[in-house]
Formats: sequence, C-alpha cells, structure tokens
Amino acid sequence: MENVNLKTIADKLHLSTATVSKALRDSHEISNETKQRVLHLASVLNYVPNPYASSLRKRVSKTIAIVIPEVDDSFFAEAINGIEAIVQGKGYHVLIYLTHESFEKEKAIFMDFQSGRVDGVLLSVSAETVSTHHISNLQSHQIPIVVFDRICDEISTAKVCTDDYNAGYTATKHLIDNGYRKIAYLSISKTLSISGKRMKGYSQALTDNNIPVKEAYIVECTLNDEYNNAVIRNLLQSKSRPDAIIASVERLTTNIYLVCQHLQLKIPKDIAVISFSNLKTAAILNPSLTTITQPAYEMGKTAASLLFKSIEKKSFPLDTVVQLFPSVLIPRDSTIKK
Amino acid sequence: MENVNLKTIADKLHLSTATVSKALRDSHEISNETKQRVLHLASVLNYVPNPYASSLRKRVSKTIAIVIPEVDDSFFAEAINGIEAIVQGKGYHVLIYLTHESFEKEKAIFMDFQSGRVDGVLLSVSAETVSTHHISNLQSHQIPIVVFDRICDEISTAKVCTDDYNAGYTATKHLIDNGYRKIAYLSISKTLSISGKRMKGYSQALTDNNIPVKEAYIVECTLNDEYNNAVIRNLLQSKSRPDAIIASVERLTTNIYLVCQHLQLKIPKDIAVISFSNLKTAAILNPSLTTITQPAYEMGKTAASLLFKSIEKKSFPLDTVVQLFPSVLIPRDSTIKK
Repeated sequence: MENVNLKTIADKLHLSTATVSKALRDSHEISNETKQRVLHLASVLNYVPNPYASSLRKRVSKTIAIVIPEVDDSFFAEAINGIEAIVQGKGYHVLIYLTHESFEKEKAIFMDFQSGRVDGVLLSVSAETVSTHHISNLQSHQIPIVVFDRICDEISTAKVCTDDYNAGYTATKHLIDNGYRKIAYLSISKTLSISGKRMKGYSQALTDNNIPVKEAYIVECTLNDEYNNAVIRNLLQSKSRPDAIIASVERLTTNIYLVCQHLQLKIPKDIAVISFSNLKTAAILNPSLTTITQPAYEMGKTAASLLFKSIEKKSFPLDTVVQLFPSVLIPRDSTIKK
Repeated sequence: MENVNLKTIADKLHLSTATVSKALRDSHEISNETKQRVLHLASVLNYVPNPYASSLRKRVSKTIAIVIPEVDDSFFAEAINGIEAIVQGKGYHVLIYLTHESFEKEKAIFMDFQSGRVDGVLLSVSAETVSTHHISNLQSHQIPIVVFDRICDEISTAKVCTDDYNAGYTATKHLIDNGYRKIAYLSISKTLSISGKRMKGYSQALTDNNIPVKEAYIVECTLNDEYNNAVIRNLLQSKSRPDAIIASVERLTTNIYLVCQHLQLKIPKDIAVISFSNLKTAAILNPSLTTITQPAYEMGKTAASLLFKSIEKKSFPLDTVVQLFPSVLIPRDSTIKK
C-alpha cells in the first residue's frame, strides 16, 4: 500500500496541499463543499495525519510517559493499571520507560523528552538517582512531571507517596510486639528516599523500645539475585543471627525464603520475615507472608489525575501538592508470636 | 529556560537557519570553521534537535515498541528484560504499550504507529484479537513487526514462540504418570492461539492414554479475579471434582490456591496443580508449584534481534523465520505421585 499523505489527496482532487491541510483542520478559509470532498477522500484512502508534522505545529503529542525502575514488581504493575484507568477515555497514549535503576538511563530518557515527545511524565526515580537536574531541566521546557512512590524531596512538583517512615516504624513495632528483638533490615539503596525513610522508622522503633541499632543488621542489597542470596546467607549464618528480617522491597522476599530453605531455617520459628510488598502470592507462600502493602492502584490513579490537571490547565499549581497514602500492615504466618 | 532552536543559534552567530541546520548535519557545503562555531554554541546552549522535525526528514524515530497484554505477568517482565538487553547500545528507545487484552486498544495503538512514531514493533497479541488486518496494514507502511509468545499463525512475519502443543501434552502426561486421571484445563481465551495449542496437547495426551475428554473439565477464565475464583470454586465443588488442574496462564495460580485454601482442599492430596508460569515465587509457594516454564528472557532477546535485523536491512526476510523455544517442566510438590 502506498503512503497516503496530503499531496496524494491534493493531486487526486486537483487542489493545493495547503488547501487540503486547511480543509482537514476545518479552516474557515475553505468552503464546506471542498471540506466534504477532502474529508470523504481522506476517509476512503485511510489517511492518517503525521503526528510529527502535527506536533511541530501544535506541540501536543497526546502522549504521557511513565518512567519507572522496573516492571517485575507488583507495586508498579498495579500502579500502571491505576494510571491507565485515568488515561482511558482521555484519548492519550501511555508509554512506559524502564530505567533498570540506572541514573544514566533516566537522564537519557529525560533528555529525549525535551524534544516534545510527551506532554507529561509520571516518574518513580531509580535507586541510583543522586541529583534532580534532569528533572528541573525538563520542567523548564513546560512539561509537567508528577513523582510517585519513589520521590525526591528536592523536586518542586506534585508528590504521591506513602508514609514510608511510619510504615518502617509499624513493621518494626509489629515484630517487637510479637517477641522479636534481633531485627535486621534489608535496603536496596542508600540514596533512595523511600529506603532511607523506611530505615529511619525502623531505627526509631528500635530506639523507642530500648533496642540498640546494630550496624551489622543493616544490609544493602542490589538488583542481582546471586549477590542478594550471598549477603542474606552471610547474615543468617553469622554468630549473632537475627531473629527477624524486614525486606524494604518486594523482590527480596524470594531471596530470603530460598536462603532459609537452603539453610533449613524455619520461618518464623528460626527467623520471622516481613516485606514491603504487593505480591499477589503473599497469602499462598510457605509460610504466608506478612506484608506492608501500599495502595498502588489508588496511587497510580491519583498521580495520573494530578498530571492531567496540569496538562489541561497550565496554571494548576502542581508544586504545592503532596498526597500521602497510608500503607497497611497485613499480618500473616511469617511473623506470628514467638 | 528558553527553548533553544536552530533560529536561536543562527541569530547569535549571524548565520541563516539553513546554514546552521546543514552545519549540524555535517554537510560538505559548510566550512569546517563554521561547523565548529555552530557545534560549540549548540553544546553551550544545550541544544536538543527536535526529533519530530528530524523524523519528518529521515523517517527514523530511533524507537521500537513492545505491545503486550499486561505487565503483571512474570513471562512478560522477563521478556522485556531480554528485549532491553539487545536494544541497549543500539541507541534506541523502548516504549511499552499495554492492550489489557483489548482488541480495540490493540487496533488503536497500531493505527497510531502508522504515522511513523516507531521504527519497529514487537507484539504479543491480546486475548481478544480475532483478526490481523491492523497488523498487515502496518506492515504495508514498511514498519517491521515480530510477534512473540502469543502469535497469530496468519501473520506473515517472524514468530518467536514455544512449542505450546508439546508443552500442553507434557503437562498432562506428567499428571497422568503421577496417577491423576480427572484432569481439568483452565484456559483464558478460545481465540488465543497459545491457549488453543496448549489445549490440543492436553486433549491428545488424554486420548493417547484412553481418558475421555470431558467438556465440564475445560473451563474458560478471564482477567477478572472474582469471576475466576467463582468458576474455579464451581469446578471444585462439582460432583465429579477433578483430581488435577492445569492452569494455562500464570495469573490463575493464585486463584486456584486461594480457592483451595477456602474450601480446605489440600494440594496435591485432594487436587494437583500445574501451571504455565515464570513466577519467581513458584518454589516458595505452599506447596511449591510444578510449572511449565518458558525461556522468556531468551525469547525476548531473539525477538528483538530479529526486529533489528529487519530495521537495519530492509531486505531481511522476516516472514520466513519461526523460532521455537522448548519450555521446561519443573516438577515440584504440587503434583507429587498419588
């Protein structure tokens, strides 16, 4: 099939391309009769306007981007569904970009956005992100950004997140209340704000209950499963083995359970486990997993709604909005009373 | 920050925009000295070429799209990682589009692609997709497409998939060998080719072992968890309750386990379960889950490699390639011998 463009239509109707273009844009300069001839032929030939040409004129791509570290995480999968629930019906496309926790990749993606490829961005920063220059740079191009879940306090825009400090505190307090005292904390990044806040809640809960914070019980994990298994094995084979673990991200659950299987440690008898997680399989794990669960779907919906408010009305003050959603502790067998 | 464009640079250097444009494209018409002045200023001003304008000239978006039904599935999460492993270093962007199993959404996305937004497409069709006109239409616009996992036999292009018939046969044979005879099959779509092929393998294995294929044991599920729980509960409360279930997609595993918990049925004593699944938690479920697992990462890599062959060399004959990857049965506790 040949490419149908303005010229194809113009040639067939013996009109100029300018006239065809104006007719398609419903210009008052063109007669109704001509408009109808053009629209009819455009429809018959299955003419699709070139959005690049159209974007050059209108600077509207009718596209929003979701920039997230990974999709292999139930929180993001659910949040995406929440976002799409809002975008549905707005006539927008949703593009998902993955940073794989790389700051370089995040910067490259944002650089690309400067050219007007998208009308707005929903962002959850990578674990490596240490500065926000790429973000403010894009904002200066009048492209609105809303951050969700993994926010950066320094960014001046709307933030949709959970109360990570409280969630970390609640998780730790739950373990203490159930008789656990030697509580380890697995983080994935020292720079990531959610990780830092969750850990502060953990430290404070220990301190409030007269339990010293032990350096050896705070372990930094990565995206590499083999590395994670090794450091967890190390932790569980150490002389002063913890009696409970808090996993600050979902993906570490499988690592912990598998290492315990391998070392023949029973959960929760030998070691209790609680994880920040939206895993659908939490209730059918062996044993069922106590989780701190975020309202991912609602957070996605709220972030997308805020973004569209700004897209539709440039004066909407994004920078004053902070939406905090409480997370929920769902107690299951992995942390039952000692 | 003001928008830096060709005119900004031209004005500051007292050149025409045409000269600046040619200098940036390294045209032989422009002197080296002028080129260096232009490039220097472009760098100082942080000039980003407009890809829309550039696309209009070159018809190259340096972008490929992945069109899949959902991300809340370990197969697709792993396949995306495989695809990105190939795209990495090619200087391309990857956009992920979700159809949420809707044929209408899939068609709308493909319509949008006709305008040159992407240079190539990796597709896994929705459960609802019943015709392939939207796909051949895009192919006629010279945009290469590779289908993976959920293929359509009718599409004339490269196909990367697993041997779904054999996998269905192997899963069924495994259950029969372990003493199960009343085997139910949960599908998610009658039109989806992988679902149909897996079911044919199931039927054939039953027939080869003199077990009649029972209509009541073939149950169609949806994307709705409540609906799925209801039909599975129905199946497990029927007079002639099956003694084994094959789940043709990963997402049904949680439904089956939860319904069994609720009905106090023990897996595998009361009912064995095997699932097509790449779930990382398969080994830590209660009980651990026997799976048919696809080499998702490798399939993603292969699909992306084929697509780039076609993008880089228009004459590469995509339509003759079919890459079949064997799936692997991983036996665990959910199907142990009766």
